[in-house]
Amino acid sequence: MSTGQPTRILILGGGFGGVHTALTLEKLLKRELRDRTVEVGLVSRENYMVFQPMLPEVISGSIGLLDTITPIRRLCPSTNLYTRTVEKIDLDRRRVSAAAGFGSQQCSLSYDHLVVALGNVTSFAGQHGLAEHALPFKYLGDALTLRNRIIHTLEEADIEPDPEIRRTLLTFVVAGGGFSGVEAVAEINDLVRAAAGSFRNVNKDEIRVVLLHAGPLILPELPPSLAEFAQRLLMKRGVEIRLNTRLEGATAEAALLVGGDRIVTRTLVSTVPSMPNPLVAMLDCKKERGRIVVDEHLELPNYPGVWAVGDCAFITDARSGEPAPPTAQHATREAHCVAENVVASLRGQPKRTFSFRALGKMGSLGHHSAVAEVFGMKISGFLAWWLWRTVYLMKLPGLDRKIRVATDWTLDLILPPDIVQLKTDKPSGIRREHFEPGQVVFREGDRGDWLYVVVDGEVEVVKAIPDGGETSLRRLGRGECFGEIALVSDRPRSATVRSLTDVNLLAVDREAFHALFSNLPPLRGFFEQLIDTRTA
Amino acid sequence: MSTGQPTRILILGGGFGGVHTALTLEKLLKRELRDRTVEVGLVSRENYMVFQPMLPEVISGSIGLLDTITPIRRLCPSTNLYTRTVEKIDLDRRRVSAAAGFGSQQCSLSYDHLVVALGNVTSFAGQHGLAEHALPFKYLGDALTLRNRIIHTLEEADIEPDPEIRRTLLTFVVAGGGFSGVEAVAEINDLVRAAAGSFRNVNKDEIRVVLLHAGPLILPELPPSLAEFAQRLLMKRGVEIRLNTRLEGATAEAALLVGGDRIVTRTLVSTVPSMPNPLVAMLDCKKERGRIVVDEHLELPNYPGVWAVGDCAFITDARSGEPAPPTAQHATREAHCVAENVVASLRGQPKRTFSFRALGKMGSLGHHSAVAEVFGMKISGFLAWWLWRTVYLMKLPGLDRKIRVATDWTLDLILPPDIVQLKTDKPSGIRREHFEPGQVVFREGDRGDWLYVVVDGEVEVVKAIPDGGETSLRRLGRGECFGEIALVSDRPRSATVRSLTDVNLLAVDREAFHALFSNLPPLRGFFEQLIDTRTA
Repeated sequence: MSTGQPTRILILGGGFGGVHTALTLEKLLKRELRDRTVEVGLVSRENYMVFQPMLPEVISGSIGLLDTITPIRRLCPSTNLYTRTVEKIDLDRRRVSAAAGFGSQQCSLSYDHLVVALGNVTSFAGQHGLAEHALPFKYLGDALTLRNRIIHTLEEADIEPDPEIRRTLLTFVVAGGGFSGVEAVAEINDLVRAAAGSFRNVNKDEIRVVLLHAGPLILPELPPSLAEFAQRLLMKRGVEIRLNTRLEGATAEAALLVGGDRIVTRTLVSTVPSMPNPLVAMLDCKKERGRIVVDEHLELPNYPGVWAVGDCAFITDARSGEPAPPTAQHATREAHCVAENVVASLRGQPKRTFSFRALGKMGSLGHHSAVAEVFGMKISGFLAWWLWRTVYLMKLPGLDRKIRVATDWTLDLILPPDIVQLKTDKPSGIRREHFEPGQVVFREGDRGDWLYVVVDGEVEVVKAIPDGGETSLRRLGRGECFGEIALVSDRPRSATVRSLTDVNLLAVDREAFHALFSNLPPLRGFFEQLIDTRTA
Repeated sequence: MSTGQPTRILILGGGFGGVHTALTLEKLLKRELRDRTVEVGLVSRENYMVFQPMLPEVISGSIGLLDTITPIRRLCPSTNLYTRTVEKIDLDRRRVSAAAGFGSQQCSLSYDHLVVALGNVTSFAGQHGLAEHALPFKYLGDALTLRNRIIHTLEEADIEPDPEIRRTLLTFVVAGGGFSGVEAVAEINDLVRAAAGSFRNVNKDEIRVVLLHAGPLILPELPPSLAEFAQRLLMKRGVEIRLNTRLEGATAEAALLVGGDRIVTRTLVSTVPSMPNPLVAMLDCKKERGRIVVDEHLELPNYPGVWAVGDCAFITDARSGEPAPPTAQHATREAHCVAENVVASLRGQPKRTFSFRALGKMGSLGHHSAVAEVFGMKISGFLAWWLWRTVYLMKLPGLDRKIRVATDWTLDLILPPDIVQLKTDKPSGIRREHFEPGQVVFREGDRGDWLYVVVDGEVEVVKAIPDGGETSLRRLGRGECFGEIALVSDRPRSATVRSLTDVNLLAVDREAFHALFSNLPPLRGFFEQLIDTRTA
């Protein structure tokens, strides 16, 4: 790190691990950064860091939307932030490619030291129907989507006369009884029950909030006595807890359980599945359970100058010999250690080994209650909640955030909950849907807004006959389309379509269909012919 | 309104006109609503009412996202709210159809009295490229999108070395110098200049904020002396004002002016064009400039029991004989009048005629300054700003909103602006793009993320030749595709595509392309053949 080009330290990922690495490097390398002998760069998909522990509070609106997140530029003013998605890591050529911005040009970054802090990703692969119909709960956008879904179902229930559809609309299911599932179900329950008062035709007794947990007791991270306290409290507030129950799949209208049970619902949240980042999977280095194996200094054994921290790294605690758990507390400590070790390598000093024991564990139960285990002590109820808030407020980066969140919490104590449904998701043009055997895709007489393409499975097209009963018109399989008649003629559905097997469909909306249909001649010819045949 | 069925009053539209009609009806018909002899229903696309005058403040983040809007259910607790889109009004059969909710079943509502308060809609029809590339500014979602765009351009400028691209990224253009354009440009200017400090590589001198206005002086609604004050103030803060200038069209990278001038920009906001609601256009009744003509009681001459208020109505002031302007103040007064007249008809009492003179006009200039004309007095600067805030705070419906907004404003005085980019718009799958002659659609070597279909015009595909210069491979016109090779092979663009004429394109993103390509056999066959031919 002497003459000419500055030494480039590149960090990948804007979560706890990545941001705290940058923060610590800025502290340790103040002079070098000022003299421009060192450059720190951070590539993050978002320009902010999400304070994950507060995410559940976004659901019920206790915290303002933007207050759980902190702009990375404010936290790390001497770091070059690249708000881009990482697309490829080339360890041999020491280069990282990031996605294009407004234009189409990729950006390619070289490094001398690389810190990989990419975390893991949510993945519903393998469980049929979950990718299409379950709501993940990991990013800020997820919390917002979930909040909107809940208010949307209340809106619909308010004007729906059919009791069966009302039951589907007013049932809310969360799968996974760990910290994030429990916090999510607590906030959902609070929001639904408080907001229901504003809906004239929604009776509080109709509301069902269900937590599914695979084990015999929720919150396996905590001592049993605290978990039992949490369980009793949630049940008292109206949450139905189903233990030893696993989610197997989902349709638009039900959660499907292992063993064949189903719970009708329009709102299924799944906090369980997470998968190593696909970028990490593509890396040619030693891995354990999909995570990057690092040595006691958090460096990759065969790639000096390449480091990994957080949920994407497989780290063995130097003292206990145990693998470090994927928590924010650990990621933060690992980030400190890695930053110190990067600086030590630059200066030719000895590196330190990583070891850390968690200080405590806390989970909010909503409604001014929580459970906590701190330095071995078990605390529950209001005291734990107060502790929870105070600790997180202290940890929340940035003074302005602290003030904003403290203000939100104060207002939340006196003001009614917000029931605004902020629609931000535009129709996606094309979406996927999953059906179990015997489900109705659409009914004769319904409005036709989608064209369907069968990806897997088989459906049957049937038409009611005047003296009751129905007649089967045709069966359709993989690669065949249906629903085009209503889309072209702008009239209601001319027949009912039902699934015969497990079916995966691709649904193309009216606007996308018309855009493609009227502009792509081969598609146009195909559909004109198809409609001729079917309406002949 | 005696025995059996209750009398049904149905209101269409959740803006100032519709919500204030419901509010007034609830006051006047307290007993009837309680006895269920009258029912009030309101159909609104959103479950909240936007307090339009505060929308510009969402751009700069002075007000929390949700604080400009009030849940309609809270304001009108005795009204049945249908959060649906109106699709058809049948005046002869006295029925209204609304779009489907989660399922596909339309909802059909009958009425005894109908109040049409559908407002107008933004429309860029006729100006080429605006629908594709200009940002509208009318709904809450628009303010959010604009805010994200601004922060996104700053993010990109921060890492962009090319000075020409930097200039495009750091130029912000607003078309339309009326109240909403001026308030928008003031807030954009405040946000960009304040936020720039957090971006290491953005120099404040590079920022250009431009206001285009067709007339010789901005704010034609106000007396010239106030408008001149506003103009000087905006210029002092760094806004470039171009008078007697009209926007003609847009591309992704420029605003095109009448006369042939162009301003390079990635952020073009257009507040000008509004069009009567298409639902109103479909109504078979007397109209003037696309608005529904009503009598002095705000009732439709040939349809007793059908009323219209707000921007979708053509109302002649009973006293002045002038048409009522489309402002929130007027819509609110019209709503009071229409509610009283509906009640008068129910009770067989005489109806009153509508007349109202605006109390005043105010426009915020951001940064603690404003202009106002109240009861004939002209006020400007900080006093006008204080007045502006106080008046709107008083008018803001709901005590909880008042508290939230007052808190936001207080925090805004002491805290730095937020620079979080909240990405909520998922890729849309399919979008439209517009190009002027000679523009590059993509360059050889770029990453290929989109397939293009030519809707109108002609493009040329060219390839660089080793000794410099380029060779033309082919010309493509209406209905032809390009860009498929990079999408299928996952490699960079193999050629450059340039527009030869004005060109409209349909762009299909990678995910949508692959979903359709792999599942729709005719499309698959077509593209396989196309690629064979072109790569042969």
